Amino acid sequence: MGMLLTIRDWGTGCRFASKAAPKTQVEFEYDGPSMKTEVPGPRSKNVGAINFFCNYEESRGNYLVDVDGNRMLDVYTQISSIPIGYSHPSLMKVLSNPNNMSAFVNRPALGILPPENFPEKLAESLLSVSPSGMSRAQTMACGSCSNENAFKSMFIWYRNKERGHNNPSEEDIRSCMINQSPGCPNLSILSFMGGFHGRTMGCLATTHSKAIHKLDVPSFDWPIAPFPKLKYPLEEFTRENAQEEARCLEEVEDLIVQWRQKGRPVAGIIIEPIQAEGGDNHASPDFFRKLRNIAHKHGCAFHVDEVQTGCGATGKFWAHEHWGMEDPADIVSFSKKMLTGGFYHKDEFQPYRIFNTWMGDPSKNLLLAEVLNVIRRENLLEEVSRSGKALLQGLYQLQAQYPNLLSSARGVGTFCAVDIRDEATRNSILIKARDKGVLLGGCGDRSIRFRPALVFKEYHVHIFLNVFNDVLAEYN
Amino acid sequence: MGMLLTIRDWGTGCRFASKAAPKTQVEFEYDGPSMKTEVPGPRSKNVGAINFFCNYEESRGNYLVDVDGNRMLDVYTQISSIPIGYSHPSLMKVLSNPNNMSAFVNRPALGILPPENFPEKLAESLLSVSPSGMSRAQTMACGSCSNENAFKSMFIWYRNKERGHNNPSEEDIRSCMINQSPGCPNLSILSFMGGFHGRTMGCLATTHSKAIHKLDVPSFDWPIAPFPKLKYPLEEFTRENAQEEARCLEEVEDLIVQWRQKGRPVAGIIIEPIQAEGGDNHASPDFFRKLRNIAHKHGCAFHVDEVQTGCGATGKFWAHEHWGMEDPADIVSFSKKMLTGGFYHKDEFQPYRIFNTWMGDPSKNLLLAEVLNVIRRENLLEEVSRSGKALLQGLYQLQAQYPNLLSSARGVGTFCAVDIRDEATRNSILIKARDKGVLLGGCGDRSIRFRPALVFKEYHVHIFLNVFNDVLAEYN
Repeated sequence: MGMLLTIRDWGTGCRFASKAAPKTQVEFEYDGPSMKTEVPGPRSKNVGAINFFCNYEESRGNYLVDVDGNRMLDVYTQISSIPIGYSHPSLMKVLSNPNNMSAFVNRPALGILPPENFPEKLAESLLSVSPSGMSRAQTMACGSCSNENAFKSMFIWYRNKERGHNNPSEEDIRSCMINQSPGCPNLSILSFMGGFHGRTMGCLATTHSKAIHKLDVPSFDWPIAPFPKLKYPLEEFTRENAQEEARCLEEVEDLIVQWRQKGRPVAGIIIEPIQAEGGDNHASPDFFRKLRNIAHKHGCAFHVDEVQTGCGATGKFWAHEHWGMEDPADIVSFSKKMLTGGFYHKDEFQPYRIFNTWMGDPSKNLLLAEVLNVIRRENLLEEVSRSGKALLQGLYQLQAQYPNLLSSARGVGTFCAVDIRDEATRNSILIKARDKGVLLGGCGDRSIRFRPALVFKEYHVHIFLNVFNDVLAEYN
Repeated sequence: MGMLLTIRDWGTGCRFASKAAPKTQVEFEYDGPSMKTEVPGPRSKNVGAINFFCNYEESRGNYLVDVDGNRMLDVYTQISSIPIGYSHPSLMKVLSNPNNMSAFVNRPALGILPPENFPEKLAESLLSVSPSGMSRAQTMACGSCSNENAFKSMFIWYRNKERGHNNPSEEDIRSCMINQSPGCPNLSILSFMGGFHGRTMGCLATTHSKAIHKLDVPSFDWPIAPFPKLKYPLEEFTRENAQEEARCLEEVEDLIVQWRQKGRPVAGIIIEPIQAEGGDNHASPDFFRKLRNIAHKHGCAFHVDEVQTGCGATGKFWAHEHWGMEDPADIVSFSKKMLTGGFYHKDEFQPYRIFNTWMGDPSKNLLLAEVLNVIRRENLLEEVSRSGKALLQGLYQLQAQYPNLLSSARGVGTFCAVDIRDEATRNSILIKARDKGVLLGGCGDRSIRFRPALVFKEYHVHIFLNVFNDVLAEYN
């Protein structure tokens, strides 16, 4: 947050060709998009929601190749889940090392029979990037399971606080077996309108981005607070934005009080550092600091969902590190680019009752360890900051060039977005860009989100900006 | 079910040494247990719930090796999740084939960008073992996600039936965003006391095996029916058992009517073919046929959870195939030995709204395809039937020898169990068996469950029976 560049720093109207494409530094990558057919092409049979079929063997770095031989610059990366590009040589090496085969073939019940040295391996990988204040992590198979189990940790923690000890009563034990309170207590999780936290039933009760996700699925009567609707660039609207944030924080406190009064106390608050599926909605570090304080004040756990924002895309490893706090969260969940799901937690969120058969997958940890090595070795967080700056500058410039088409360019690192004048235009831009060799994704009602891998360099930014400029020109 | 052997077919009091261990036919396997230390040994630091640390590289076939070099015959297989033993040469070959590397390194968002030929590959693997009446499957990352998404499919199906079309109203769309009906309808899933269907919040509302799973987690007011408590061997108590089953079925119908009356109609019924975590509770094919008819009669979907029973352990690929029905289920969920989670469903359970980032993992499908090849090539279902018969006969004999210690030996295929006189004795038997080189698991209050891999042959049965006999002798 707090991006200080504005459109005034840039000339307007220039094409990006002059900036484009120094020869690729990543040997194994391609040097640009190459389109042979429309997408989906003849060999992609378009079935239902499927976009097209891919040739992952030929995909490399930032380039996704489809079955018709079309090669696209991928600025969406499998819904933000490819950390260091396709077929990274370091990951291929992990796979071709015979010592690693057992991890892929013999998947253990990790909670009871972990492999030799697994705690040491976790210390070197997952725990080496622990958020501030957290020395423990629990792996899980996917993002939804991560949040579901984080919720359970918060509920257990809250009930133990209420009881003053960890020993359930006879009544607790009897009633929980038939889904009734006090054993299954009427506790709630406070979430935000526009948030997305997964699609299993607990997660879904905190997800409020699109009706199609929630429709027809029974839910919980849990409080939903407004997320600030800010004006961008943030630094040009500080006063209005601060007012909007204050309004939302007041509502959060009101809801906590109301739900306590109606017998459904708020055990935890869940929030994304940037609402991703909901339209790349930002809030200021000040908002998050105050929200964290509200959680403290009312005895609620504070759960930061970094499933989409985590693993470097904002230029820091965790997006919440931009808030500059020593004690930013009680729980931080992750998945996607981390290759394994899971959550970090403070010691007091005792993990002993969180259990399932697989509890994650050591083969994913093996790949994650190498991803983290690559991030460090290639200084990818710095690269992301540099590419992100170029990307946002480019978006500011295009926004100045096409004021009727684009607005609210925003972002941190390469985690950027821009609004399009309406949903239909947004959707048509996504298709035109794809046909010119650039894969983008939408979010919210009419935003385009940028979710490149961490190996998306400045010259990739310029390749993208040139194509995007060409696409936008068709609408003028 | 319907095992016709009784204890009278066997002499009593014999040791199993005469039957033991023809030289192993599985070249890559070990020829028996070999214990060097107590378990957990000095190199296994026992932390929390962890049993001990394993050396998976050295583990082969039915033998799990720990970090102290102890080699144990594994009759529990990572909570029933290892299909064809450890380090199976065919799976190692899948891993060492360079053509397969991409599937492990480039995990796609399978719902939108599947790999080339993925539908064809699914047809050859997952769909080649489709349960009767089902030609479609959706993969998921784990068992809980499989059941969660199956529930969503049933809710969506039920609401579409109620509406008479697939188009939600304005009110549906508005109300679902804030977790309220009619958009988030007050529908329910009927489950059975003693059932286990996972630990995420939707699944957990249908799980009723142990209080510790459910305690402190908010739940749904959904109906819970009694599961028949039968006497074993089933064929000796047919009349009493039929009465008990009739009582439970009557209760099921009463609950469906009650919940409809209180405005929470039952959209689906979920049941395991054998309640596994809950204590290996069996019911007759007749019970399941009648239950299926009740579901039909009341317009409820019928969801058979084969997460633990599926993939061959009962001697048929799916345990529900023992019911002998042409239309046994609407949805069949799986995970564990299938290596990937997921669920089969009838066409009318339209999958278009079931979505998440990964939607499973093609690398797991690759391994599953090879597992299925091995099952066919090595006739493992027949082997399971043969080993299962020997195992159950042995249990009957031991039960006759130790009538104060063992009771209710039961099973189908190698999916067997026996009750121990009390929980403390059961737990101490598990530890003593482990120290003699046999890994077993408990279930329910005082049962031991047998969950070997499909490569558990008759001579492994005899190795197990000898050790088990030695352990039991210590209690006489």
